[in-house]
Amino acid sequence: MGENIGAAARVMLNFGLTDLRVIAPRDGWPNPKAVDMAKNAKEVLDNAHIFDSLKEAMHDIHHLYATTARPRDMEKPVKTARETINKIYQSTGKSAIMFGPERTGLTNEELTLASAITIIPVAPEYTSLNLAQSVAIMCYEFFATEHQTLELPEHFSYDAASKKEIGLMLEHLTDTLDRQHFFKVPEKREKMLQNIFNIFTRIDLNEQEVRTLRGIFKSLHNNT
Amino acid sequence: MGENIGAAARVMLNFGLTDLRVIAPRDGWPNPKAVDMAKNAKEVLDNAHIFDSLKEAMHDIHHLYATTARPRDMEKPVKTARETINKIYQSTGKSAIMFGPERTGLTNEELTLASAITIIPVAPEYTSLNLAQSVAIMCYEFFATEHQTLELPEHFSYDAASKKEIGLMLEHLTDTLDRQHFFKVPEKREKMLQNIFNIFTRIDLNEQEVRTLRGIFKSLHNNT
Repeated sequence: MGENIGAAARVMLNFGLTDLRVIAPRDGWPNPKAVDMAKNAKEVLDNAHIFDSLKEAMHDIHHLYATTARPRDMEKPVKTARETINKIYQSTGKSAIMFGPERTGLTNEELTLASAITIIPVAPEYTSLNLAQSVAIMCYEFFATEHQTLELPEHFSYDAASKKEIGLMLEHLTDTLDRQHFFKVPEKREKMLQNIFNIFTRIDLNEQEVRTLRGIFKSLHNNT
Repeated sequence: MGENIGAAARVMLNFGLTDLRVIAPRDGWPNPKAVDMAKNAKEVLDNAHIFDSLKEAMHDIHHLYATTARPRDMEKPVKTARETINKIYQSTGKSAIMFGPERTGLTNEELTLASAITIIPVAPEYTSLNLAQSVAIMCYEFFATEHQTLELPEHFSYDAASKKEIGLMLEHLTDTLDRQHFFKVPEKREKMLQNIFNIFTRIDLNEQEVRTLRGIFKSLHNNT
């Protein structure tokens, strides 16, 4: 289906992948429906290589992973999506991930040519993944493995307050509350403080918020 | 777009999620295009809750994660998809992941109501992810976090040969080669054995394959 090829091309480019190989496309090539779905990833389609058979398509591939909805009775290593990507990063040579038509999947003959079988873990109640969604997940895993830390522009970063800053703020608060004679029953002071501290340590305050709160405490204190 | 809602419903069910909330759907509800795309996940659409506003939709939600293509200048913690899912597993109370319309994304007003911002890491060259693909990736992360080990039926499992079995096989091979007078130059025996061993240790043999190879060695040996 052209729509699936186009959607696959789009999500490949989202995750920095560009080498698309299409084997015996049902509706010929180029396919206008694929172009529609690819949006700004048309270049991936323009540069796609079209082959008549899997054997031709994999002529320069060292490691071929065959995605299937469920494992078949075949003597092949079976790996999850994440294990597959880890294996690809560890191996030398060219790796390829192979997807079958959405309705029928890959044939046993095609699986025989694969180095290993890749399974995207799905809920047993409904295992039929859309083809482009399967491609999305494999491309995402490929990219995410190398990009688990977000590189944010300086001014976007959320500066979580340090434990020390929070500690100083809580001391400040305690001092303020004491001066305000907030704790009427001395035996309950400890427990009440604990409850108050729990509020402020749970909410992941950032530095600016700590400054704001200290400003509030200070203003309370000045008014007494 | 109905197509995106339907595709999202389908992939939710693929990963065992069923609580879909739709806020002010552009083309009314129910939407036949959504039903088409949902395939066998129609039940997710049938049970979806429709709301007029985000505030109503999140009435019972404790932690709301807002997915955005890139971080905005807003004092919110920013997390990757995987960090978000880990946080959801760690937290008590109900969590929700919020997606905006594909073209415009979430408004700043909507982001203000979120506990944190979730970013799916994408390649800088083309950051525009299809809405249903974003949903797919978040649902996949949710499911994969708990299902990294494949539970395969017994007869599907790939019984990788143990180091011991491989070791015995290599002893068998060495013995066979020695008896065959394979090593013409004694000084080279060590190095040649090493190269041969490397071949067999690199290819992830399973138990059956080890038995097959030992059968071959035995037959060679019997013919001498």
